[in-house]
Amino acid sequence: MISVAILGATGYTAVELIKILLRHPHVRITALTSREDGRSVDQVHPSLAGRLSLSLENLAPAKVACRAECVFSCLPHCASAKIVPELLAAGARIIDFSADYRLDSPGVFQKWYGEDHPDPGRLGNVPYGLPELFRSEIPGATLVANPGCYPTSAILPLAPLLKEGIIAPEDVILDSKSGVSGAGRKPKMTTLYPECNESFAAYGVGTHRHTPEIDRVLTLFGGKATNVIFTPHLVPMDRGILTTAYLRPGKSGIRAKDVMDALRDFYAAEPFVQVVETLPATKDVSGTNNCRITARTVGDRILTISVIDNLVKGASGAAAQNFNLLYGFDETLALI
Amino acid sequence: MISVAILGATGYTAVELIKILLRHPHVRITALTSREDGRSVDQVHPSLAGRLSLSLENLAPAKVACRAECVFSCLPHCASAKIVPELLAAGARIIDFSADYRLDSPGVFQKWYGEDHPDPGRLGNVPYGLPELFRSEIPGATLVANPGCYPTSAILPLAPLLKEGIIAPEDVILDSKSGVSGAGRKPKMTTLYPECNESFAAYGVGTHRHTPEIDRVLTLFGGKATNVIFTPHLVPMDRGILTTAYLRPGKSGIRAKDVMDALRDFYAAEPFVQVVETLPATKDVSGTNNCRITARTVGDRILTISVIDNLVKGASGAAAQNFNLLYGFDETLALI
Amino acid sequence: MISVAILGATGYTAVELIKILLRHPHVRITALTSREDGRSVDQVHPSLAGRLSLSLENLAPAKVACRAECVFSCLPHCASAKIVPELLAAGARIIDFSADYRLDSPGVFQKWYGEDHPDPGRLGNVPYGLPELFRSEIPGATLVANPGCYPTSAILPLAPLLKEGIIAPEDVILDSKSGVSGAGRKPKMTTLYPECNESFAAYGVGTHRHTPEIDRVLTLFGGKATNVIFTPHLVPMDRGILTTAYLRPGKSGIRAKDVMDALRDFYAAEPFVQVVETLPATKDVSGTNNCRITARTVGDRILTISVIDNLVKGASGAAAQNFNLLYGFDETLALI
Amino acid sequence: MISVAILGATGYTAVELIKILLRHPHVRITALTSREDGRSVDQVHPSLAGRLSLSLENLAPAKVACRAECVFSCLPHCASAKIVPELLAAGARIIDFSADYRLDSPGVFQKWYGEDHPDPGRLGNVPYGLPELFRSEIPGATLVANPGCYPTSAILPLAPLLKEGIIAPEDVILDSKSGVSGAGRKPKMTTLYPECNESFAAYGVGTHRHTPEIDRVLTLFGGKATNVIFTPHLVPMDRGILTTAYLRPGKSGIRAKDVMDALRDFYAAEPFVQVVETLPATKDVSGTNNCRITARTVGDRILTISVIDNLVKGASGAAAQNFNLLYGFDETLALI
Repeated sequence: MISVAILGATGYTAVELIKILLRHPHVRITALTSREDGRSVDQVHPSLAGRLSLSLENLAPAKVACRAECVFSCLPHCASAKIVPELLAAGARIIDFSADYRLDSPGVFQKWYGEDHPDPGRLGNVPYGLPELFRSEIPGATLVANPGCYPTSAILPLAPLLKEGIIAPEDVILDSKSGVSGAGRKPKMTTLYPECNESFAAYGVGTHRHTPEIDRVLTLFGGKATNVIFTPHLVPMDRGILTTAYLRPGKSGIRAKDVMDALRDFYAAEPFVQVVETLPATKDVSGTNNCRITARTVGDRILTISVIDNLVKGASGAAAQNFNLLYGFDETLALI
Repeated sequence: MISVAILGATGYTAVELIKILLRHPHVRITALTSREDGRSVDQVHPSLAGRLSLSLENLAPAKVACRAECVFSCLPHCASAKIVPELLAAGARIIDFSADYRLDSPGVFQKWYGEDHPDPGRLGNVPYGLPELFRSEIPGATLVANPGCYPTSAILPLAPLLKEGIIAPEDVILDSKSGVSGAGRKPKMTTLYPECNESFAAYGVGTHRHTPEIDRVLTLFGGKATNVIFTPHLVPMDRGILTTAYLRPGKSGIRAKDVMDALRDFYAAEPFVQVVETLPATKDVSGTNNCRITARTVGDRILTISVIDNLVKGASGAAAQNFNLLYGFDETLALI
Repeated sequence: MISVAILGATGYTAVELIKILLRHPHVRITALTSREDGRSVDQVHPSLAGRLSLSLENLAPAKVACRAECVFSCLPHCASAKIVPELLAAGARIIDFSADYRLDSPGVFQKWYGEDHPDPGRLGNVPYGLPELFRSEIPGATLVANPGCYPTSAILPLAPLLKEGIIAPEDVILDSKSGVSGAGRKPKMTTLYPECNESFAAYGVGTHRHTPEIDRVLTLFGGKATNVIFTPHLVPMDRGILTTAYLRPGKSGIRAKDVMDALRDFYAAEPFVQVVETLPATKDVSGTNNCRITARTVGDRILTISVIDNLVKGASGAAAQNFNLLYGFDETLALI
Repeated sequence: MISVAILGATGYTAVELIKILLRHPHVRITALTSREDGRSVDQVHPSLAGRLSLSLENLAPAKVACRAECVFSCLPHCASAKIVPELLAAGARIIDFSADYRLDSPGVFQKWYGEDHPDPGRLGNVPYGLPELFRSEIPGATLVANPGCYPTSAILPLAPLLKEGIIAPEDVILDSKSGVSGAGRKPKMTTLYPECNESFAAYGVGTHRHTPEIDRVLTLFGGKATNVIFTPHLVPMDRGILTTAYLRPGKSGIRAKDVMDALRDFYAAEPFVQVVETLPATKDVSGTNNCRITARTVGDRILTISVIDNLVKGASGAAAQNFNLLYGFDETLALI
């Protein structure tokens, strides 16, 4: 049994992670932390009533490392990187949900997050926890950067196409749509029910912090800097992300079949990526760790459409997948 | 033109009221107040962009009364009654959305609201602004107590049946269901989108503050104290209230037809109450000042089902209806 | 491995059942039937893509019984009872989702369903598959009547209270609210998205076919005929049922604590029933086989509030629970 | 008073139109047609109960023209053009909601709609009823082609920018998102509540019939053929369309301010188009005839984001606006 702790356990990714880990035969949850909260976990997350008897605690990193071999950090950016060094020093392995270790440059981090990175020395040496693309780097790691939800939905369809030169890296438009759970569980006017129900809107146009994360990973595959145009939108639903990508062929003569074949070949052995003929809906993958992708050609453009559950493949499912890789378990354990 | 002010103009009832008043040919909105807000009204309510050019101001009652003949107070309970005396003294007429003047006893108010009433002397002398039942009292008033949303949905079907002895006052069960806008616009965990979307729950069982308001008004019609069992529930939708009432016949031999006839007779001349054969849905009255009612007999019980839009007939539409009565306009002006 | 067939596999309960059974270590799904459909299951249910490779077939009962030891029938009422005799004769065990074997009287069936029962001789000899109340009858059975969704939500809170005399059987009011998946997957105007979204309505007032099913089971526990007043309502959400019950004490001096204690004692050992202090929301049990119950006293009434997921504990989860009992597996297998 | 008829009165655009026309001081609705329906209008549209007493009738065009000076046709494509000639011959003026007269080429119509146009001679001579762009052509017309919902949301932001050369016509990507009412009121599996609730999907990728309509009108303004990439998506909400357009500058040195200024100048006098600084949400214009537009620059791209209510500015509100122009009324009558 691996003892695990979850830091910042009051939010939606945390409760989703707890539910996944409760199904895992080799996991014991030993600590849940929160700065403010001393309530039992089922008061904070009523859906856990009768399934887990733990209280949230305000624990110092050293205490956490005493209790748990593996730590899932659901803390916000900067908060995570402030305690990661101490946790690592105390011997814990960490799967970090925040953006802190997803970029490789302290300068880029500073530009997009507006703060100096608390642990700049590690940037560039932390595997990006998207196993479909970086599987070999994960098992030996002590720290894994769990990907952002939008980046997962955008990178999975595009990376294989960039790698094969099927699409050009210079002109990538990503129009993404997400359910409201992606905005977190802190009460805010913008995510109040009567504000976002029966409404649809864009937000963070040109400024969303997932942009440099997408650019960084796509650049690795395209061999050349992408500068994606990324526009997120809020959909009146709990969970799900759909990303419509508008792309240019990277060479002449590309047909829709070539795009689909490249995707199918690349993901043939992947348990969580399905390349499908029909247009996927977010509901098709709701509650699962799957990503579904299809492609079309329209005029002189290639389009890909991809769907994930932002709380599962976009966060907690990916974290469990990384956990399985870290500890040598079957990658699908607790996820199918 | 009547100059009007709206106090506490940041919420859902205020914006609904503004939209109604903008259609009113004899109204000019001259002041919108908020304790904290100096923003323009279209920043606070984007749907008003281009329709109204006013900023929210933190105005003292005297200032308000200088600007407006009629004041709509959307302030919370106790806040309203604290400034009503000064507004009245300054010559304003007031339509109060709060619960402050709906009860007739300071003791009952203290019991349910947990605070001493700031203006106890007026209790019992303020007309209850449900024109269908108290029309004659309104035109001459300087202060009107605008009814609560749940009470409106419960009292309209029951008052005529109590008056005629068709139902017994001793055994009244009200199971009410409301859209989320009824919970206000202040960010709260319980009304965050992912908390109440795809969910249904009861709240305030046995303790909701609309209970004594319903009891008070029904007692006037039944001639004898009712002690309603009132259970509110939250529906994942923006607006609408449906109340299912479980009642006992007040005399023997009552058939469904008798109940429907009594309702039809009572409301025959009312522009905003429709007694219908089919089961009404909240959507049938959404955005309107209508109340739809039907009745059935099941076993030894009489059931009524009534629907309103909580923001219109349950709040701002009723307020406009009262305004029309106060100033001698056609009661339906701006409401049809 | 137990080979299982699912009859009528195009609907919402069928796909929920398939997902549960795919997690079951001792089940192999060998046949899915549909009268009209020859499509692969992932065309009919896109969320199953990559998880199950079967096509829907129009199979005669004899063929079904050749393929499967256990048959789950998701056929409509009367369609099920028309083929059950042949399936039983061919040696299959059957878990029937329809209402066909839930009542014990052909006359009552005829009255509520408007058709003569196709297999009247078996009525009264088929266990009602609510294991929490009828567990001992299930393991030896060849045919189990899987309970209705509303009845499950109503019977679980009330049966223990009737048994202990805590509530009176003569005056039971059930106000139920269900998500739209309960209305099935056949395109109908009433369940079209823009018809039921942003709306709330009652339906089947006094005439819903689950009424005699509730009465029959409650009568077994109350020792005396109940004639429940049952009112279902449609909530704009996919899944979930909440039932608010208005009850009278069965003896004097009953306090809220007595009601809660009786419920807690009765369900102390049950894995899927949680008696909770706080008011439960349907979301707390969404996607689970749990039923959560609480009780309150208001005035002279006892109230219970219970929630289930209509597709899980209200249908397919209960069916899997019954399956586990039939074959001697741990009752919670594939369900936690 | 102008007598008006509505053909195909059972759908969502028809009921929206009826509600608008009931507020119009110079309109009397004299006929509502439906091929199959003889029900009263309030049975078909319960929200009209008590507001309009008409039954739906299966009327021949000659009969319609006897009853009404102006005919609103909500019939599907081809059905409309089959009766328009007879209605015109009988002296009626027609506002046609179908696509029949929006294109100017029978060949293009045949290609996208798969049928020969029933009235090809009129194509190219019917004004496109988007008053903001074609106002001068409408007053004298006997037949107006009411625009499609998606085209309205796409053309209003782009036409002024093409006209000024601010954007290039060769590379226009339109990512549109619509509420479910746009799919009509005929029961279909795809728009069943549990299918599209809590889900988001694209449809008609590269094949949606609004594409040639958008191309045709934009070409008029860009002076050169556009071949837009248009991708519609379905949002789990009743009403609203948001279109995110990804554009290239038509000349060098274009700043965001230039784009906004061009839009502001173009629409300065328009009552129903608001150019706004903040990102508009569909809810901001819900229930109104407004279109709100903003623009941004991101990287080397210009983005516009526009919102309308698909049932109002995208259909019935635009029709009423055209009606006002046809008959010389204030264009905003019944619409503000």
